[in-house]
Amino acid sequence: MTETYRRIVLAGRPDGAVQPEHFRIETGDVPRPEEGQVLVRNHFLSLDPYMRGRMNDSKSYAAPQPLGETMIGATVGAVVESRSPKFAAGDIVVGMYGWSEYGCSDGAGLMKVDTSHVAESAYLGVAGMPGMTGWYGLNKVIEPKAGETIVVSAASGAVGGVVGQLAKIAGCRAVGIAGGPEKCAYVVDQLGFDACVDYKAAPDRETLARRLKDATPDGVDGYFENVGGVVMNTVLARLNPFARVAVCGLISGYDDAGGAAPIERPGQFLVSRFKMQGFIVSDHLPLWPQGLKELATHVATGRLKYRETIARGIAAAPEAFIGLLKGRNFGKQLVDLS
Amino acid sequence: MTETYRRIVLAGRPDGAVQPEHFRIETGDVPRPEEGQVLVRNHFLSLDPYMRGRMNDSKSYAAPQPLGETMIGATVGAVVESRSPKFAAGDIVVGMYGWSEYGCSDGAGLMKVDTSHVAESAYLGVAGMPGMTGWYGLNKVIEPKAGETIVVSAASGAVGGVVGQLAKIAGCRAVGIAGGPEKCAYVVDQLGFDACVDYKAAPDRETLARRLKDATPDGVDGYFENVGGVVMNTVLARLNPFARVAVCGLISGYDDAGGAAPIERPGQFLVSRFKMQGFIVSDHLPLWPQGLKELATHVATGRLKYRETIARGIAAAPEAFIGLLKGRNFGKQLVDLS
Repeated sequence: MTETYRRIVLAGRPDGAVQPEHFRIETGDVPRPEEGQVLVRNHFLSLDPYMRGRMNDSKSYAAPQPLGETMIGATVGAVVESRSPKFAAGDIVVGMYGWSEYGCSDGAGLMKVDTSHVAESAYLGVAGMPGMTGWYGLNKVIEPKAGETIVVSAASGAVGGVVGQLAKIAGCRAVGIAGGPEKCAYVVDQLGFDACVDYKAAPDRETLARRLKDATPDGVDGYFENVGGVVMNTVLARLNPFARVAVCGLISGYDDAGGAAPIERPGQFLVSRFKMQGFIVSDHLPLWPQGLKELATHVATGRLKYRETIARGIAAAPEAFIGLLKGRNFGKQLVDLS
Repeated sequence: MTETYRRIVLAGRPDGAVQPEHFRIETGDVPRPEEGQVLVRNHFLSLDPYMRGRMNDSKSYAAPQPLGETMIGATVGAVVESRSPKFAAGDIVVGMYGWSEYGCSDGAGLMKVDTSHVAESAYLGVAGMPGMTGWYGLNKVIEPKAGETIVVSAASGAVGGVVGQLAKIAGCRAVGIAGGPEKCAYVVDQLGFDACVDYKAAPDRETLARRLKDATPDGVDGYFENVGGVVMNTVLARLNPFARVAVCGLISGYDDAGGAAPIERPGQFLVSRFKMQGFIVSDHLPLWPQGLKELATHVATGRLKYRETIARGIAAAPEAFIGLLKGRNFGKQLVDLS
């Protein structure tokens, strides 16, 4: 008897908003590992904004996701059969097996993780690539100094939550921007930010600017950008001299063929002499062991909190991804594949 | 008998383009230095784009130029009477005496210069603040590596010319952007840039982009921004991964109440992971002695060339300044006050 498994492939490229029909579920036989290979049953799939860029056929920092192939994505799961000396059945491993219930490979890029004090799903979030993204952007681009004010957009998300909590650990004032009272309350009450501005509650830009000003009485020294658009332009106008802006994402423009809204006032670069720098965490692999170790330690000791939104079953992945692009998730968006 | 002298004060704040009526010439008695003071007969006045910002009443990195007071500006001239132990009659000094034929002060900020191998006017340009601006932006923001391609806008100007020549000395490919065939020929033939794109000769943006591409076959690793607008957006689209952009000025927007045109595609920050940083050279005074010494040495040894446009007499300063904002000058814009 041959077992089957399911995976999701890219069925079409969106011209604007992502729709369910851009994905297709496929069923195949569970592969048998060859000599040197491992077979992994994936427990969780990570959904992340970067996937949206891969769905386009345009030049970017990474090659486009090919049509008809398994959607890219990070996974965590258990080795069920190993013909590699490096892995044993039962090992919990993080990999890039994509939107798929199973993965089979020679183990390159596969990382064994210790789940004794950190839940396996956390290795896809706060102690994984999203956490590392926050760690790198904050520590290596913003370089916070104690007493400074650090603002992060999408503050309740997987990356944003890490940025603010690490900023607090560094002795900074941490201010979030998030959509809705529930997310803002979580950012302040659970994650320990000093303040959070609800951008959805501001009826116009002037109100948003005033609320940001109230939350940042000493101005903004560091800004971790996840969203772009109006939020970005509002924060840029509030930067102190010599501020640093880490551009991690511009999700507000990902579904728009024109991309994120412009930076309206480049003259601010001269008024505030700030630095704005885009980064991709995968450019900095040599720093991952250090960063991931710090993050896992913070998680294990309870200094780094996180929240997950978990969709059940692989068939739910497309809707969950569409929800992520619209900000419907709350914390790290995962799909439970078990 | 009391001698008189002339100076130019700010008569009104422009709401858009600067006009001659925004200035007023005034005549007064040449001051007598008190104990501890020096009296300087200014020989040259430097006209620089930053003065446009000071004419506004808006918040910026520096206080606005007060109405009715002598316009700010750097000068070089000769001490005619000294009651300070630090200066002697005949000393050639660089100072900030403004749009004025004479200056009288306690000598704070006044710098004696050696004119044996470097002309006094050069201390207002290539071996002065503009040169230092190019030196800082190139060396401290762009940090060029041999073999890289460095682009500079307003390449025939006082700052731009220094940037490209220092980039060549650093072993880079230097590409200028300038307006008109005469300026472009000067940039390549006299200053030794590898190429220069005439932005005025491009009938549309696509042509400009194509000509920039032809001039930068390996992409752009460093960009020194003086102008903003279409030129800026065209160069940003050509940046290589990990490029560095030094924002020195955005002269295309200085006469526009809305400021410089937006940065159209912030998504480029992610595609090219570039850094964009505004700077003001006066924030970095500790580096000036080192930078000015290097620049003066390059001038004295003929490695750093420059060109000046000299208006005659203080009454010509307003028109010369308006011409500077419109790009009518060719190289460093000075006013001969002697």
